[in-house]
Amino acid sequence: MKQEITFIQREQLKTKPDTASLGFGRYFSDYMFEMDYHSDLGWFNPRITPYEPLTLEPSSMVFHYGQAIFEGMKAYKTPDSSIQLFRPEKNMKRLNDSCDRLCIPRIDEEFLLEGIKQLIVTEKDWVPNGEGTSLYIRPFIFSTEPYLGVRPANQYKLLVILSPSGAYYGSQLSPVKIYVEEQYVRAVIGGVGHVKTAGNYAASLKAQEKADAGGYAQILWLDAKENKYVEEVGSMNIFFKIKGEVVTPRLNGSILPGVTRDSVIELLKYWNIPVREEKISIEEVFAAHQRGELEEVFGAGTAAVISPVGELTWKDQSITINGNNIGQLSQDIYNELTGIQLGKKEDPFNWTVKVTEVEV
Amino acid sequence: MKQEITFIQREQLKTKPDTASLGFGRYFSDYMFEMDYHSDLGWFNPRITPYEPLTLEPSSMVFHYGQAIFEGMKAYKTPDSSIQLFRPEKNMKRLNDSCDRLCIPRIDEEFLLEGIKQLIVTEKDWVPNGEGTSLYIRPFIFSTEPYLGVRPANQYKLLVILSPSGAYYGSQLSPVKIYVEEQYVRAVIGGVGHVKTAGNYAASLKAQEKADAGGYAQILWLDAKENKYVEEVGSMNIFFKIKGEVVTPRLNGSILPGVTRDSVIELLKYWNIPVREEKISIEEVFAAHQRGELEEVFGAGTAAVISPVGELTWKDQSITINGNNIGQLSQDIYNELTGIQLGKKEDPFNWTVKVTEVEV
Repeated sequence: MKQEITFIQREQLKTKPDTASLGFGRYFSDYMFEMDYHSDLGWFNPRITPYEPLTLEPSSMVFHYGQAIFEGMKAYKTPDSSIQLFRPEKNMKRLNDSCDRLCIPRIDEEFLLEGIKQLIVTEKDWVPNGEGTSLYIRPFIFSTEPYLGVRPANQYKLLVILSPSGAYYGSQLSPVKIYVEEQYVRAVIGGVGHVKTAGNYAASLKAQEKADAGGYAQILWLDAKENKYVEEVGSMNIFFKIKGEVVTPRLNGSILPGVTRDSVIELLKYWNIPVREEKISIEEVFAAHQRGELEEVFGAGTAAVISPVGELTWKDQSITINGNNIGQLSQDIYNELTGIQLGKKEDPFNWTVKVTEVEV
Repeated sequence: MKQEITFIQREQLKTKPDTASLGFGRYFSDYMFEMDYHSDLGWFNPRITPYEPLTLEPSSMVFHYGQAIFEGMKAYKTPDSSIQLFRPEKNMKRLNDSCDRLCIPRIDEEFLLEGIKQLIVTEKDWVPNGEGTSLYIRPFIFSTEPYLGVRPANQYKLLVILSPSGAYYGSQLSPVKIYVEEQYVRAVIGGVGHVKTAGNYAASLKAQEKADAGGYAQILWLDAKENKYVEEVGSMNIFFKIKGEVVTPRLNGSILPGVTRDSVIELLKYWNIPVREEKISIEEVFAAHQRGELEEVFGAGTAAVISPVGELTWKDQSITINGNNIGQLSQDIYNELTGIQLGKKEDPFNWTVKVTEVEV
């Protein structure tokens, strides 16, 4: 039985920010989707309600024991002025995977996606249409029960907030400098690295500070057990093109299964370009470069889509990849994925979902 | 330069709960200590203010990227009706260690401790004096800045809330059943296991659920790299008495440096009982039991003080320790520590700090 989504109107709409100065994650739209959970009631009271401050007890468990998970998605304006999402069902599924690992009650994926669509229809004027812009969608769930015992909470809140955004890494594709971190680790097998929980990001900040201080854009994380195998880059998955073949670390329980990662793999298969998911050591990457076989390196994630890596530093060795230029394959994948996302290219995979088709 | 602590009076005081039904972490006193941070101002506006709900933006970074740390301490009522703390300077120092690892701006330890004392003086009638009761003190800091980019926040809130509490594990010392976890891990070297951050607790819930389902009180965590060495138990550090000597895992960067752990070690030294901090494998523990040399096992933490372990299960082996009775040493340490904490025994270590001495 589907629940009815209530609509609570706000008195006055906000002034929309100038598209040129959007940046990322700074402005929020007029409405949000909200739903509560109580162990006696399940998920209840789904509503589209004014974006406004929350009221929470100081003892709310999220502040103390960190049961907090999220997703990141985007809505795009197509040339015919319709609005579409990119593989949103993957985000809904991953949200539930995060729920499972963090002992948070699962949500009805179809229902939440319908709520998100209704929210976007309500906020259709907030989807920007400048080059590289999109409406960033942030679904998140956190524990609210006022209690200091360590156990899964009995009360939660689910919110979906919308933020009109420019490109995450600036407005155009340009190679970044990456630093291989050896002291700090992001995640370990048996931990929570394979799901999107708040604590993973908190734990990553210290290493990112080190990277910033050294003039690097991002960190390349190694596995926590042997400090040897490549895991992921900052907030992206990582791909290496070696002698015409593309390699990306195999999902092992500590790597986040990115939607863009999966899309890159599917696209490469469609193009008949060899792609393998396997354990790859940082030593192998540097050896491939020594042999002149490391042709391209790029990150893949919702925020940047594709982020070419121009320089990679590990211990005291720095290597320049493809002369610090954007690789042809990186560019092709970027063009194809963003083309599909923006409705400028055909979508042979049926990845896009029109929002405007929803009945409200 | 010390800041002035403002006092904001509430209109009506709450009705205090019955001492017999306190439980843990469920009731909160009339006032809390609050202080804010902004990168332009540093820590500012320290105040003792009514305990009431907080107002936070849905985009507050804590919900998304989990910069959240805390401490746990207790205030005790002594037989002469004064109030005292136990080694509070250790908690203040550890709070700053947590700040450092999580990229949260450090606090002035002396000033915060003074604020906590003033708060407790204000709330002196909330310190319960039944057997096993105390006033639980929860200082915590979390990011508040409304922003979705992944980086350390520029705005934080520090709160100290008070909760009159019975004993965490029930009202009397009794042996617990512990289960050695092999699938999930708590922390890894290079991560955040050595500090008190919210995400550590969120990550531990899944294994605790497994333990609960099997009828175990707590989990014994092994190291994440080799799944071999003992780390800690649920929310406590762990000690083994083997052939008259006491062994506890050495602090290695993934174990929490407990204040009670440190106090147990100091006490044993004072008593001339051999105590060693070293890497100890779960195999060694079981082998010692086979040889008839494993005399006692106990956890040590602020909540339980000492928690004797009566049964330990690893894979398909279960061992009973000391006939599932409270060990003499466990009992002696418990009596000595709680005696000092409650002001019923002499304090040769100068561990206790009278709260009523503070000038307000």
